Amino acid sequence: MSARPLQDYLSSCREMIAAEIRRVIPRDDRHTGGLYRLMLDYPLRPGKALRPALCLAVCRALGGAQSAVLPTAAVLELYHNAFLIHDDVEDASSKRRHELTLNALHGVPSAVNVGDGMLALAIGPLLDNMAVIGVGRALRILRLIARMACETAEGQMIELNWIKSGAVPRRLGEYSRLVHKKTAWYSFIAPMSAGAIIGGAQHETVARIARLAIPLGIAFQIQDDVLNLATCGDAYGKDSLADLWEGKRTLILIHAINAAPHEDRATALEILAKRQPRLGTELDTSARAHERSASDVEFLRRLVELHGSLDFARQRARRFARRFRAGLAHEADGWARSRHRDFLFELADYAIDRAT
Amino acid sequence: MSARPLQDYLSSCREMIAAEIRRVIPRDDRHTGGLYRLMLDYPLRPGKALRPALCLAVCRALGGAQSAVLPTAAVLELYHNAFLIHDDVEDASSKRRHELTLNALHGVPSAVNVGDGMLALAIGPLLDNMAVIGVGRALRILRLIARMACETAEGQMIELNWIKSGAVPRRLGEYSRLVHKKTAWYSFIAPMSAGAIIGGAQHETVARIARLAIPLGIAFQIQDDVLNLATCGDAYGKDSLADLWEGKRTLILIHAINAAPHEDRATALEILAKRQPRLGTELDTSARAHERSASDVEFLRRLVELHGSLDFARQRARRFARRFRAGLAHEADGWARSRHRDFLFELADYAIDRAT
Repeated sequence: MSARPLQDYLSSCREMIAAEIRRVIPRDDRHTGGLYRLMLDYPLRPGKALRPALCLAVCRALGGAQSAVLPTAAVLELYHNAFLIHDDVEDASSKRRHELTLNALHGVPSAVNVGDGMLALAIGPLLDNMAVIGVGRALRILRLIARMACETAEGQMIELNWIKSGAVPRRLGEYSRLVHKKTAWYSFIAPMSAGAIIGGAQHETVARIARLAIPLGIAFQIQDDVLNLATCGDAYGKDSLADLWEGKRTLILIHAINAAPHEDRATALEILAKRQPRLGTELDTSARAHERSASDVEFLRRLVELHGSLDFARQRARRFARRFRAGLAHEADGWARSRHRDFLFELADYAIDRAT
Repeated sequence: MSARPLQDYLSSCREMIAAEIRRVIPRDDRHTGGLYRLMLDYPLRPGKALRPALCLAVCRALGGAQSAVLPTAAVLELYHNAFLIHDDVEDASSKRRHELTLNALHGVPSAVNVGDGMLALAIGPLLDNMAVIGVGRALRILRLIARMACETAEGQMIELNWIKSGAVPRRLGEYSRLVHKKTAWYSFIAPMSAGAIIGGAQHETVARIARLAIPLGIAFQIQDDVLNLATCGDAYGKDSLADLWEGKRTLILIHAINAAPHEDRATALEILAKRQPRLGTELDTSARAHERSASDVEFLRRLVELHGSLDFARQRARRFARRFRAGLAHEADGWARSRHRDFLFELADYAIDRAT
């Protein structure tokens, strides 16, 4: 199957959503310290617009109207970008979508505040939704998004604690639970559920579609982590090997550490107990000793190579993608043929084959 | 007038709100990385509970029921605490209410995320409000709070830009606009407006009460800044002279700089162009040269002393407090006598006489 129709679908979504976001974010920046200009930065950088596309596709595949789902899809993209801004602060990242992060460009205080402003601004269109999709559906969407933001914060907290305490989960179930909360909820479960609600689905159908979103989300996350490790230099848009510098507990790293012999495992855990080097501060040598070095990162990279952890992760991703495809085939059995339905099927391959 | 009834009113509010917040924040913290335990930290530290008290007092003075207003009052306190957490990150503060800040205790990443979680959690009770105060009023409250969060982010952005660019406003109107957005909106305008809406006020009455909140808010903020400078050591619960270390553009500092002769003004601006010393990093001497030193802070303190800027600020605060009292007397003319109404009148004195 060619990826062209899928790319076209994503591009057309991206354009619609960019226009909608420009409509939602105020233009008048005279007495706002430039808040709204900074809010536009991340959403207008080249991204996949995957979340709004998922939301649109599910809604329209169920027979819902584009005009009904567009504001909600744009809000999901706003939330996504607000989370990215705060994530970049929390991970002290310097690159995002091939450019400097907001924290690197404007400092941590501004980045924290711009993210807060976006979370605040996103509530407006969800209230305006009442007039677009009715009070009942608009309230279901509000509940969904409030839950989504809580789940994301819970997932983020679990991961921050792993990093802070130097813990590495021994069971893959712990990894799946993290991905479920931290990424799948806001990137897959909420967009697809919102699409279903606006498309007119009953509660049980929405619940089934939400369950379907989980394996797709895990497949996407694993492939994301594979790309971060397998891609050199800047092609990926984030720092090179950023996940290893950050000490991120990816499926790949978890596999490598749990497969390693005792001594290597101990060394890896020591490396993970160190801190990620911080941005923009000149530390003296004694402080540097507590930070991960280039040779530490190289040790982790070789551990991953030695134990075939990239292949292990790719295999797992394929399994989750197949699970999504099987579930979708069952669910979409009665749906009319449409390019929206096709897009959802194409995602199963895209999740694990994409190069960015 | 004795401050006892006012203190009693605040204490009883504080207890009610603490109980409500304990009800709203989930107890089950098994799969959340401790997110909800950290959320409870700031709200349970000894604070004034001024925002919920304002909300309750206006609602009940208008004849509204306590059970109707309690969830909204608790949400306002949650927002307040989420803003405090992110504020402490943005200002790199180390003390809050006589204890270490969340960022000092658990690091910036956790603090950013706990604030995000609180903002997400606060949406739930605002949706549950539909069943408590009806769909119409609940939606007005949601709109109000969404606007409040945007105004706060705008104000914060203006202030961050002043600090980053080393700018000091020359006109007091710029200072008032900052306080209006950054503090008055979420601490006075939104709580009093929400109380009025839940108390059954029509749109025009709500608008008048919102306007009344502005001078009260400015009086409070000026007194806050006076206390920060006039109180020694830890009595105030924040770092000693924290505002000067931070380079905060208080009315006091703005007055002192604008009253100073050319040379002193230039020195002060040079000091304000430096950065606040950062927490927890050991910088070398060249980096320290770009940070404000103890003698810089002493220079600013003496400038304030020299130009009588504390007295100027106290005078202004009194003027705003009188304006609030006159407006309230007019507005509350037809209200039945109650301790809620009395509390609002007592606030005019409390705003400028309080010691913490």
